[in-house]
Amino acid sequence: MVTKKNKFSHISLSTSSKDNRVIAIATQIYEILSNADIKVSFDKSLVSLEKNLKVKARSENYIVKKAEFLIAIGGDGTMLNSSRRYGSQGIPILGINLGKVGFLTDISPNEITTRLLEVLKGDFTKDKRSFLEATIKGKKDTYLALNEIVIHSGAIAQLIQFNLYINDRFVYRQNADGLIVSSPSGSTAYSLSGGGPIVLPSVKAITLLPMFPHSLLNTSPLVVNDNSKIRIEMLGKSKAVLSMDSHNSIKLKERDIIDVSIGKSVLTLIHPPGHDFYEACRNKLGWSADHTKN
Amino acid sequence: MVTKKNKFSHISLSTSSKDNRVIAIATQIYEILSNADIKVSFDKSLVSLEKNLKVKARSENYIVKKAEFLIAIGGDGTMLNSSRRYGSQGIPILGINLGKVGFLTDISPNEITTRLLEVLKGDFTKDKRSFLEATIKGKKDTYLALNEIVIHSGAIAQLIQFNLYINDRFVYRQNADGLIVSSPSGSTAYSLSGGGPIVLPSVKAITLLPMFPHSLLNTSPLVVNDNSKIRIEMLGKSKAVLSMDSHNSIKLKERDIIDVSIGKSVLTLIHPPGHDFYEACRNKLGWSADHTKN
Amino acid sequence: MVTKKNKFSHISLSTSSKDNRVIAIATQIYEILSNADIKVSFDKSLVSLEKNLKVKARSENYIVKKAEFLIAIGGDGTMLNSSRRYGSQGIPILGINLGKVGFLTDISPNEITTRLLEVLKGDFTKDKRSFLEATIKGKKDTYLALNEIVIHSGAIAQLIQFNLYINDRFVYRQNADGLIVSSPSGSTAYSLSGGGPIVLPSVKAITLLPMFPHSLLNTSPLVVNDNSKIRIEMLGKSKAVLSMDSHNSIKLKERDIIDVSIGKSVLTLIHPPGHDFYEACRNKLGWSADHTKN
Amino acid sequence: MVTKKNKFSHISLSTSSKDNRVIAIATQIYEILSNADIKVSFDKSLVSLEKNLKVKARSENYIVKKAEFLIAIGGDGTMLNSSRRYGSQGIPILGINLGKVGFLTDISPNEITTRLLEVLKGDFTKDKRSFLEATIKGKKDTYLALNEIVIHSGAIAQLIQFNLYINDRFVYRQNADGLIVSSPSGSTAYSLSGGGPIVLPSVKAITLLPMFPHSLLNTSPLVVNDNSKIRIEMLGKSKAVLSMDSHNSIKLKERDIIDVSIGKSVLTLIHPPGHDFYEACRNKLGWSADHTKN
Repeated sequence: MVTKKNKFSHISLSTSSKDNRVIAIATQIYEILSNADIKVSFDKSLVSLEKNLKVKARSENYIVKKAEFLIAIGGDGTMLNSSRRYGSQGIPILGINLGKVGFLTDISPNEITTRLLEVLKGDFTKDKRSFLEATIKGKKDTYLALNEIVIHSGAIAQLIQFNLYINDRFVYRQNADGLIVSSPSGSTAYSLSGGGPIVLPSVKAITLLPMFPHSLLNTSPLVVNDNSKIRIEMLGKSKAVLSMDSHNSIKLKERDIIDVSIGKSVLTLIHPPGHDFYEACRNKLGWSADHTKN
Repeated sequence: MVTKKNKFSHISLSTSSKDNRVIAIATQIYEILSNADIKVSFDKSLVSLEKNLKVKARSENYIVKKAEFLIAIGGDGTMLNSSRRYGSQGIPILGINLGKVGFLTDISPNEITTRLLEVLKGDFTKDKRSFLEATIKGKKDTYLALNEIVIHSGAIAQLIQFNLYINDRFVYRQNADGLIVSSPSGSTAYSLSGGGPIVLPSVKAITLLPMFPHSLLNTSPLVVNDNSKIRIEMLGKSKAVLSMDSHNSIKLKERDIIDVSIGKSVLTLIHPPGHDFYEACRNKLGWSADHTKN
Repeated sequence: MVTKKNKFSHISLSTSSKDNRVIAIATQIYEILSNADIKVSFDKSLVSLEKNLKVKARSENYIVKKAEFLIAIGGDGTMLNSSRRYGSQGIPILGINLGKVGFLTDISPNEITTRLLEVLKGDFTKDKRSFLEATIKGKKDTYLALNEIVIHSGAIAQLIQFNLYINDRFVYRQNADGLIVSSPSGSTAYSLSGGGPIVLPSVKAITLLPMFPHSLLNTSPLVVNDNSKIRIEMLGKSKAVLSMDSHNSIKLKERDIIDVSIGKSVLTLIHPPGHDFYEACRNKLGWSADHTKN
Repeated sequence: MVTKKNKFSHISLSTSSKDNRVIAIATQIYEILSNADIKVSFDKSLVSLEKNLKVKARSENYIVKKAEFLIAIGGDGTMLNSSRRYGSQGIPILGINLGKVGFLTDISPNEITTRLLEVLKGDFTKDKRSFLEATIKGKKDTYLALNEIVIHSGAIAQLIQFNLYINDRFVYRQNADGLIVSSPSGSTAYSLSGGGPIVLPSVKAITLLPMFPHSLLNTSPLVVNDNSKIRIEMLGKSKAVLSMDSHNSIKLKERDIIDVSIGKSVLTLIHPPGHDFYEACRNKLGWSADHTKN
């Protein structure tokens, strides 16, 4: 998995965080990269760098054309946002983690120089992740999510009723607050809080988890093949909302039909050496080498 | 998936059920097949057919060499047993269901003639299933399971302590009554009763579920790629038992190291037309088209 | 528990259902009661009865003063509404069930005459239920719920952060979509969908259940004594909503402090003979005398 | 809850731990108490003290008659054992904790002198706990448990089938590996590992939790009033085991009928000042003031 490569020639920076450390960190990275004779660009999200560095912010298009990879500075929200905007267009992403936890980000503020120099030398691994794609029948827009697509009543303790189909076969009719459709990336996010399984990034699967299901019956999470076409048919007068990565949401109409599947584009995450999914779990989910209840 | 084929020339029968309908059903099938000019053999499990039919029971070896497929008459236990004995050696299995439920069996006693004639005409689908294989480090035996391999203290509320590794990487240390390692086939069996996800047969995955975990921490089921090498390292003085499909079990010794992975052999299930996994779920797990709590 | 009593002299009717059977059923009940020489009144919710019966709808106050008990015609929503409005003021409630399920209602439309005559003869049991009461520190209003009080971000996958105190002792700090505080009556409602336990009506307890908790740690439901004072202290910039029985909700402000406890008033439900909580569970939750998976 | 009392005159010691620190700790306590002019006795479990202290071990009867309270030295097992043997006969118990965790024990080895002197001055609280009592219909023996009574097949993935009755009313028929009946004390023990709720010691309730239930249907834990008579009627050919506090177990026969209820005797735990159930939860279940996933 380790790719040796002498040098990069153009790297871009982006954020969607309002953390007040962002500009200092972006400036630090700018200097490290410039010193290594790498061209650096940044997008409008870092427009306040213009003053310090006397360099113009660039358009999304410019970055997609020119950058070999993008450094996303922020928390999980920044990673999800950068992944949807740049990652889905083929730009690999490296995450600087300003938040408390993060399964997608790798580099802490206090190790930026060391880690970045390793990556520049070619000492990194690539980690491919799939996107989920949702469309509403009869409409043109495609909605992208890295973690999960949620269909929900938009209020607590308000039911939606829907039929679920997988590859055109009827699965079940459900009354619930909503349904979470998550990728392996999303299995450690919202789905996990709802009792879903942890699905390793290498598993080709999509997980479906009803939220507060009102059924009498078995409502275990369902893990289906990642080439499945998932169809949710809204029933009755259910008012519902379609939500992507908990960031972007749109209102559904009565009797809308929503199709969810894995998208064509693939996200490439760049990890510095030593990245370990299980270590992330141990740190972030409290798994441990020796702390046990008894 | 539908294979058209004019005829079979040799089909075998087996059971591991003590249900008193078995002999009558085996005789009925014997006649249907003989009338269709198909040679029929059966193994020692149906030795009492010898009297009625004046035909000798055959050895397992004979059947493995000669049979184009095997009809297993019984419940889930019979299917699991036939799968391990014959299916693992390449003989496809068709299940006659005498039990209450069954995700592996298809044909009810009251539809044997109709369904069997469809299959004989070539009107069937094939469904490939993986086996789990366990070995104990330093020992030669390989243990096979279609549904699940369980490592357990052998008593309730007695802990085992173990380290879990996947592909040589440390995952966590756990104190629990046990650990269930299940194939997709097993995801609707014991693992489901313990809160595990339903994993569709087409998903290339293995599910790990701790039993009564005593950890403080997140103990969600873990879904890993089906090419994973799973290693369980017994710690301390844990007395433990290794159990295959809840039928066959062997005692482990202190500090034994158990390796579990997907086996090389593949089971082929033969389904009559109209087989639908989701319909099986609706019937067996109570999923429904219109019964909901509210 | 069975109280023998010769007659009632004044019974009232109410609804909050829009079901088109309501008026016919109310008229039928009006006739049964009038024939038994019982005075009948109804509130504004049944104002359309005025035409048919040439009787004026009465005020809530009038009914609270005069009625010996109230017949609530509708589903769970009607029962919850009538319980908060009339039941909390001491009027016993008998429920006619127009909805699919109901743990609070007893009489189906097709058995109204029989059941009602039994009750009029004094052949009934009384079932006492507690209300939950919420107040916001520094404000005068008291919010009443029969089933549950929920504090929630008002959107999916949006966290609130709060400290929980019970009887002035710190319990934990939690990040979650919300917290459900439910009475035993509510334990078979929203809390159950979220994985909470079924608490029998006779148990003097309140159940606390976090919704989609983001904690690393044990997030089991917590069952506390029903004389407990529960305090939820909103932290950070959490936008939250306080919701009573999923019907009435108010917006909270940053750093609001919410106190929840059992209220002083007690609801009396009137059950016709043969009422059985476990039978309700078997019908409504699918518990059964003989349907089992294996 | 704080009882002021000048002095004790007779305190006893016991253990069921094989920890090699026990004798040194018992000796230390012996000296502290003797110095305070308190008579100290110990039972056969500490017979090796006889040599060092030239004092004879005493019978259980002697201790029950003479001791004002008993100091139990060990882990959870010692507390459960001492509670059943001495606590059930009215002797209050104070626990010295040698194990990793403990909801019943309070004093760590490194704070024995300080804590014990506080208690001797009368600076302690009393905490009353109920026992569960099981009997088998037609037999004389009564089985006592502080935490839980479990009925189980005695093997993994082996079903028992039973009918559950509460106060002579039928609840449900269940197929499962077993059933856990737990007191509030037991709600943080085995029941918690199986997904049961945490029930505060002050709640008058018993929790029923099926183990690996094979039902189609809702199998939520059931919280019933602590004056309930619970009857479990074994069905079919179920081989089962009755287990008390995971320490003592007896074989059941086909069709045995087991009655479980709260026993008459009450355990009194003695807690040094500052004891806090929620702090125990925070330490032992990982609840925390500020560690959260996001």
